[in-house]
Amino acid sequence: MTTEQPREFFDVVLNQRACRSFDQREVDDSLIEQILTAATHAPSAENLQPWVFLVVRDDAQRARVGDLTRRAWNSGGREHSASRLSPEMMKDVDQGAEFGTQEAPVTIVLCGDATIGLDMTLPSSVFPAAQNLLLAASALGLGSTMTTLATMFAQELSTILDLPDSVRPMAVIPIGWPKRPLGPPKRLPLSERAHRDRYNNPW
Amino acid sequence: MTTEQPREFFDVVLNQRACRSFDQREVDDSLIEQILTAATHAPSAENLQPWVFLVVRDDAQRARVGDLTRRAWNSGGREHSASRLSPEMMKDVDQGAEFGTQEAPVTIVLCGDATIGLDMTLPSSVFPAAQNLLLAASALGLGSTMTTLATMFAQELSTILDLPDSVRPMAVIPIGWPKRPLGPPKRLPLSERAHRDRYNNPW
Repeated sequence: MTTEQPREFFDVVLNQRACRSFDQREVDDSLIEQILTAATHAPSAENLQPWVFLVVRDDAQRARVGDLTRRAWNSGGREHSASRLSPEMMKDVDQGAEFGTQEAPVTIVLCGDATIGLDMTLPSSVFPAAQNLLLAASALGLGSTMTTLATMFAQELSTILDLPDSVRPMAVIPIGWPKRPLGPPKRLPLSERAHRDRYNNPW
Repeated sequence: MTTEQPREFFDVVLNQRACRSFDQREVDDSLIEQILTAATHAPSAENLQPWVFLVVRDDAQRARVGDLTRRAWNSGGREHSASRLSPEMMKDVDQGAEFGTQEAPVTIVLCGDATIGLDMTLPSSVFPAAQNLLLAASALGLGSTMTTLATMFAQELSTILDLPDSVRPMAVIPIGWPKRPLGPPKRLPLSERAHRDRYNNPW
């Protein structure tokens, strides 16, 4: 159930932000269905739609997936990030890696099927669907964040989810109601990342 | 200049479709700026924003980039796709690969900077920005399509655009006004790609 009103496209896109703390309210299947429908309307190479969505609600299954994220974070991830992130962001990412998948009632594991798409084009065919999924969650007032830590243990993730060999886990996305309002996203000015006609010719 | 009205989020997402034929009308910088702003509001690993946008308007530069797409298409791409695509889609993709970059007044080459992000996380950090870019173009009534053919000649693309070694070209996206209205996208039913808790347990 959502009380959200329809939202304007740019309002959603310019205010999307990672959510890493969730409250315990349930998320209806009807909302997950809207989110997945948005995801599957992303483009893909040759329109082959090589994405595979594992919607994990079962507590034991979510805990197993969450354990992999936590393990990746505690066996190198935290150390790698500690020197690079602001203390504020580090605290938020730490909360997400430790408890995010546990708190959110739904975890979506997004995969690419290498028997449908080419390995070479799976990233350009699957991550746009992930972005549609995250945006749709935002549009409905839900919190979410794209994580890839658990994919470091792809084989164990595959075992937990009974994935065939050809189905490659690419992202783990918790979905739930945000514990607190999310502030605006922080971004660099366009001029630092955009060039005209040639690199180093500023936009 | 656009005459488009603000559009609802799901209306944009559920109607996005690849455009491969463009008319010759100019596309204002102000529209490109709205599109890039949307792109840079995508999430990225550690919020490092490792994307780099080359906005190519110069005719000679666009022709050089277009030549690479055409060459990749004619040296294997067409043959690979011919046995897999419907005749209707094959015709459209063929038109796009041969003439798309030439017809559209703007080509955006989207790259990932490996000195900012890790090589491992560039795809999950750059393709979501590509999707925001494509969606924003749709929201403004513009046509676009994500192509990766030219990245088969990454070294030549880098030479054309003066890219440093660390900046990896990942997608080439023509932007222009659609030559004709785009129909609705065609997608498989959700049940063919979504599973509950475990693979082969249908959603």
